[in-house]
Amino acid sequence: VPSDSRRLALSAAAGEGVTSDAEVRAWIDERRLRDGLHLERTTFDALPRWSTDPATGDVSHDSGGFFAVRGMDVRRPDGSGWQQPVVVQPEVGILGMVVREIDGLLHCLVQAKVEPGNPGAVQLSPTVQATRSNYTRLHHGATVRHLEHFLPGSGARTVSDSLQSEHGTWFWRKRNRNVVVEVDHALEDGEDHRWLTVGQVQRFLREDDTVNMCTRTVLAGAPLRGGAPAHDEFTDALAAGLAPGARSRHSDAEVRAWFTAARVEAGMESRLVPLGSVQDWVRTPEEVFHRDGGHFRVVAVDVGSASREVHRWSQPLLAPVGVGTAALLARPIDGVLHVLARAAVEPGFRDGVEIGPTVQFTPCPGTPDPLFADVVAAAPARARRFDSVLSEEGGRFLDARCRYQVVEVGEEVPLAEPPGFCWVTPAQLADLLPHAHYADIQARTLVTCLVSLLGAGAGRGRRLRAA
Amino acid sequence: VPSDSRRLALSAAAGEGVTSDAEVRAWIDERRLRDGLHLERTTFDALPRWSTDPATGDVSHDSGGFFAVRGMDVRRPDGSGWQQPVVVQPEVGILGMVVREIDGLLHCLVQAKVEPGNPGAVQLSPTVQATRSNYTRLHHGATVRHLEHFLPGSGARTVSDSLQSEHGTWFWRKRNRNVVVEVDHALEDGEDHRWLTVGQVQRFLREDDTVNMCTRTVLAGAPLRGGAPAHDEFTDALAAGLAPGARSRHSDAEVRAWFTAARVEAGMESRLVPLGSVQDWVRTPEEVFHRDGGHFRVVAVDVGSASREVHRWSQPLLAPVGVGTAALLARPIDGVLHVLARAAVEPGFRDGVEIGPTVQFTPCPGTPDPLFADVVAAAPARARRFDSVLSEEGGRFLDARCRYQVVEVGEEVPLAEPPGFCWVTPAQLADLLPHAHYADIQARTLVTCLVSLLGAGAGRGRRLRAA
Repeated sequence: VPSDSRRLALSAAAGEGVTSDAEVRAWIDERRLRDGLHLERTTFDALPRWSTDPATGDVSHDSGGFFAVRGMDVRRPDGSGWQQPVVVQPEVGILGMVVREIDGLLHCLVQAKVEPGNPGAVQLSPTVQATRSNYTRLHHGATVRHLEHFLPGSGARTVSDSLQSEHGTWFWRKRNRNVVVEVDHALEDGEDHRWLTVGQVQRFLREDDTVNMCTRTVLAGAPLRGGAPAHDEFTDALAAGLAPGARSRHSDAEVRAWFTAARVEAGMESRLVPLGSVQDWVRTPEEVFHRDGGHFRVVAVDVGSASREVHRWSQPLLAPVGVGTAALLARPIDGVLHVLARAAVEPGFRDGVEIGPTVQFTPCPGTPDPLFADVVAAAPARARRFDSVLSEEGGRFLDARCRYQVVEVGEEVPLAEPPGFCWVTPAQLADLLPHAHYADIQARTLVTCLVSLLGAGAGRGRRLRAA
Repeated sequence: VPSDSRRLALSAAAGEGVTSDAEVRAWIDERRLRDGLHLERTTFDALPRWSTDPATGDVSHDSGGFFAVRGMDVRRPDGSGWQQPVVVQPEVGILGMVVREIDGLLHCLVQAKVEPGNPGAVQLSPTVQATRSNYTRLHHGATVRHLEHFLPGSGARTVSDSLQSEHGTWFWRKRNRNVVVEVDHALEDGEDHRWLTVGQVQRFLREDDTVNMCTRTVLAGAPLRGGAPAHDEFTDALAAGLAPGARSRHSDAEVRAWFTAARVEAGMESRLVPLGSVQDWVRTPEEVFHRDGGHFRVVAVDVGSASREVHRWSQPLLAPVGVGTAALLARPIDGVLHVLARAAVEPGFRDGVEIGPTVQFTPCPGTPDPLFADVVAAAPARARRFDSVLSEEGGRFLDARCRYQVVEVGEEVPLAEPPGFCWVTPAQLADLLPHAHYADIQARTLVTCLVSLLGAGAGRGRRLRAA
């Protein structure tokens, strides 16, 4: 019996499956036309079923569910620190992909999902993307389709299942269950879902703002370690770096020791405080913003659509200021690709530190760019092996776009790591992802981007976008 | 080059190394005679350098370091719950074992360490057992010997290194770094340390109250998966169950899914509260105890010794009421040993749930014994493959003894698991231990006990004790 890893790699190597690229393209375009949203800014007080606590200034849903916007106080070990608004969502959601073998090839049941903060409104999401509020019907909406495959006793076979964090600068200790299950019988796909090969998902990933964050993180947790044969020196090194037991600069134990030490040494402390008391942030009836205009804004929106399928609703959204950069430096070492992992310290993480991209930041006036940002900026186009602008969760964030890049480097980036960095093989990084809280959401997206370079659509650059 | 796993197994299979069993025995006896402690109960107010906060009732060290005794409020999802005292120790300590190859065989540099709460005062501990307070000299004591091998740039090679929890019913989110490093040069061992083979440590583990908790958990994190050849049907199944890729009832992904679901569903919430306000606990000048007399007491002690090497000191200790039971049911399934893992929900865990022994409890009047306690109680002596009373950390707990058992079972314990339980192979369990917070301290001790059944001393029962 071929392993899940082998079967996923075959699906990655495949071009079209039961749905042609043209059909996927037409389906996305049709849904974007039909379900296009219009957002109108409003005041927090005018949001139906959302209230501001007069004592704390916290904004929360009257059901007690969904999420709330509160304040966070952050202290570094030296006592310095800052305060900021933060999105609090204690309930654990499910990000679930159903896969099924059709004509001998694994297919993913992908959803065209509309979310208010999405650039383009509709993006390719996992089969199911549901908070507990969703599936306990707190929003009085329709049942979540295909949710049953992720509930106990469903009979579906688990391929992967772990708790993973989301943005530690915007969320307070948020985590979601990232799940892939396989079913062995036909499902009615319905108009919201299509069966795509892994290779197809990887191809659409090269298109800006098309494959959503949840799909990226769910795929990162699946045992996907290969695809089509390598077609140049870089993909050769990538295939070698993804192979089990690849020759690595550091042993697995050393990588874990590096990570453990980073967690011990970080020592950043954060706690929730009333939103009304956060220093350096200004609140108006319509928004909360930093007095320098940087970081992000919290806004209140009414969401509407011309589509009969989408109902009106209202909610707060966190709107980042500017497009972020998330880049992984990748360097072949003796023919085996290594990526430069960073110990990312973010105040909203449950355990202080997770592995982040080499470079992760949003330019901010008066703040120096982080280490290696210059290497990313100076990289020639041919070295940007992956380069797309992808967006973060559209249910909480408004136009949260980030340029994701895998940048090939050579000896100009030395093997001796500065503090907080560690060269690891893609296999070493990927092997940590079945476990909770090792890698942050941007690093997980970049693992998916990196592995996609062995997919059927790789080597063709950004052709899809031009089509 | 043989792997660490292979080299550790060879050391487990070995009998004596550079130190004979008789020398180890004599060394322990001599240290117990020399460093025997006498504890005198005192009042909290009389503890030098410890203070009770008049507002909260919390007991803490004047340095702000070491640990504090505070209160904890625990709520189940249904709103029911309880309050209790809890030990709060935010700083991360190092539990570190140095290993070295001597005459072709790995040896562990074991310490004979005196701790006030230890039955027998002196037990076999890892090379280094140090809180940050220890090694930053907060206690104005001597430098921690051999600590340098665990600090950055030491040149020692990492064998294993992870953050692990300790008792979630007594500690608030406590964690320690569990480390094994290998050195390639001679060290002065000094009179506090001896070089033992893994097999020797495993043999002394069968003796009551001799191998301390820190040694047990550090060994559990090392890649130790074998030992001497199997000598009966049970150890045959154990060897098969420890082998990589053993045929298991559930796939690795299914085991992780079971664990992930348990974490999501647990939903127990705990928070720190003032010790002075905890309900159902009574405080006198000398102790804090539950009004039913159960659970544990917090006491204040002066520690003295006739030995010139041990200085007087004073501290609070948590003294459990009664001897605990921690048992792992083990059943061969198609010739491959499986153990029945339990999703343990303890209020002091950082993430709500960790894997615990099948049965873990201290008898408490009025509280029914947990599931499978009857199976453990009814097991015949020959089915108790491991059976020793071992004690928990003597630096915080006074006479905290627990009977650790590996109990062989057959078809009387069905394959269909009740909610919260999962049959896993020893390899599946052991493979999770290099990662943080998968298994609790009792489960980790039992992994070490289980693997010891393949050691050189196994099959000889409790002979050492009679000697």
